[in-house]
Amino acid sequence: MAGGSGTRLWPLSRKGTPKQLLKLVDGSSLLRLAFDRAALVVPPENVVVVTGAAYVEAVREELPELAEMNLLGEPEGRDSLNACAWAAAVLYERDPEAVIAQVTADHIIEPVSTFAATLSEAFDVAEEFPDVLVTLGVVPTSAHTGYGYLQRGEALPGHPDACAVITFKEKPSMATAAMYVTSGEYWWNAGMFVWRAATFLRELKALQPVTHAQITRLAREPEALAEIFPALARNSVDYAIMEPAAAGLGAARVVALPLPVSWRDVGGFASLAEILPGDADANVGNTRLATMDAANNLVIDSSGSGRLVALLGVSDLVVVETPDATLVAHRDQAEKIKALVAEIARTAPDYA
Amino acid sequence: MAGGSGTRLWPLSRKGTPKQLLKLVDGSSLLRLAFDRAALVVPPENVVVVTGAAYVEAVREELPELAEMNLLGEPEGRDSLNACAWAAAVLYERDPEAVIAQVTADHIIEPVSTFAATLSEAFDVAEEFPDVLVTLGVVPTSAHTGYGYLQRGEALPGHPDACAVITFKEKPSMATAAMYVTSGEYWWNAGMFVWRAATFLRELKALQPVTHAQITRLAREPEALAEIFPALARNSVDYAIMEPAAAGLGAARVVALPLPVSWRDVGGFASLAEILPGDADANVGNTRLATMDAANNLVIDSSGSGRLVALLGVSDLVVVETPDATLVAHRDQAEKIKALVAEIARTAPDYA
Repeated sequence: MAGGSGTRLWPLSRKGTPKQLLKLVDGSSLLRLAFDRAALVVPPENVVVVTGAAYVEAVREELPELAEMNLLGEPEGRDSLNACAWAAAVLYERDPEAVIAQVTADHIIEPVSTFAATLSEAFDVAEEFPDVLVTLGVVPTSAHTGYGYLQRGEALPGHPDACAVITFKEKPSMATAAMYVTSGEYWWNAGMFVWRAATFLRELKALQPVTHAQITRLAREPEALAEIFPALARNSVDYAIMEPAAAGLGAARVVALPLPVSWRDVGGFASLAEILPGDADANVGNTRLATMDAANNLVIDSSGSGRLVALLGVSDLVVVETPDATLVAHRDQAEKIKALVAEIARTAPDYA
Repeated sequence: MAGGSGTRLWPLSRKGTPKQLLKLVDGSSLLRLAFDRAALVVPPENVVVVTGAAYVEAVREELPELAEMNLLGEPEGRDSLNACAWAAAVLYERDPEAVIAQVTADHIIEPVSTFAATLSEAFDVAEEFPDVLVTLGVVPTSAHTGYGYLQRGEALPGHPDACAVITFKEKPSMATAAMYVTSGEYWWNAGMFVWRAATFLRELKALQPVTHAQITRLAREPEALAEIFPALARNSVDYAIMEPAAAGLGAARVVALPLPVSWRDVGGFASLAEILPGDADANVGNTRLATMDAANNLVIDSSGSGRLVALLGVSDLVVVETPDATLVAHRDQAEKIKALVAEIARTAPDYA
């Protein structure tokens, strides 16, 4: 799944260049990292990318080895349920026995070997238990209030790590998050899943029959994409499938596997700052810095051309350089970037 | 005279692109403005530019109409005395009757018609009184502490505007500056002069005989430039000639003519901010701005390509964009730019 836009990373991310295509990590895009992670577990020719139609060309450039049939471009974003359902229906048509790992493309995961081992075990579980939807639960390293959590229950026979999911929890308060983490019963909901295509589609049919009918038709009539896709209801796979399934409303069981990795959502500049090197004054950047009386600044340059950014008597700033636009923001105001970009989309749409 | 480096405008100004070559004013450089001002009074083919050897190529590009013989490139900067003396000696060789207006190239002067009228009168005075060195005194519009002042005395016969100069004053304290301005007796020392080449050289011989000998030889042996010029003593024309002459130590008299113009030294970003348009929140810039919770910022982009600079939750910043370097500074720290550039010259000399 590589469909996000990443407004919070403007001006790095743009209408035509979403977050997952930015070369944020040592010259690699998050999409490239996600593809390479997946290819540790499945043959590369079996990797399918679901993205926005506007990004299809950029994805082709970023992943030249991706077969054209494995690139699904959504005419409009319809949230994660429809991305999962479209992929499942397409792969079911190709192979009714297909088992799918549905993974995200906007995280940094380390070590990747641990991720690969967990994903392999998840495939084993999904192969062995045809009525199971596997979800990966990241073992929390902090009481993060920006993630959803899942509460784990009994272990699965033969797979002591795998646990039934009792319930999914929305993003918690700090106190609740702290309780979750100290209890040891909760994992971060990573939004990454492994399931048989047939199992997922059966659950979809039981819980979201209208979507099931639309998606099944789409898999058989790909030429109807422009007609069918925009008519799909927006829904998240958590709300539409995982939570009702965990609550026993469907036919499938939800099982979680622990993912003991460093898992970082590069959603905004604060998380980007965590992965970049800093100086003694906590000035962090991916380009050459010259500082004087400057501390706790984050500097990003998209060019990779060795731009020098000089900071003089300033603190707590985010400075982002791109070929045609610059952002200078106070770090504490970063959450207002969405509003700023909305304003720019209105007044200067070429830059949004 | 177009020899300055303009460190305080880094990263706009660089080793190879000094302040006077930057297109700061409606797409025109300060050098172009100065050339056009001079050409209002003297034939363009009579304009001579004294600049640093490193800038000669850039000056040729900026002033394609400048004759090669009228472009004097100093191998090393030796301050204003030697720039004035070299020009005087060269022009005296060409025409012993030459009268020279020695003007600066790093100011914005408005209205130019007033400047031209004053310069014409200064030529008349210098023609009429062969023993006079004319200096232009800008009529102060504020108690500026960043300029030197000159104290005017008796008027010159037949030229009621022209006054003898009693003394030159260094940059004053605020209280002294206020006294100067309210007294009406003091004008800003503009560092612009009109004199006969012969008169200036005679005064030079009387007051700075070593420099006179070196410069006279240089005018006759231009091929010895690389040998002679670096051996010249650094000196300002004020210290070396004008102040001693005003004190009666030489043979010439110093006469001031009032220059009732808006006269702005574009020495740093604060003065640049004064000539650029601003929005309701006093955000000033020469490029497209998008602001939210931002006030009193100055944004300069050297590209002229329509870069969008977005400011979010920041105030009192100077943001300067160039193709390979960016400055983000607090406005109150702008005087530290020289130190910052010195540091950059040491650690990243390509950017200095």
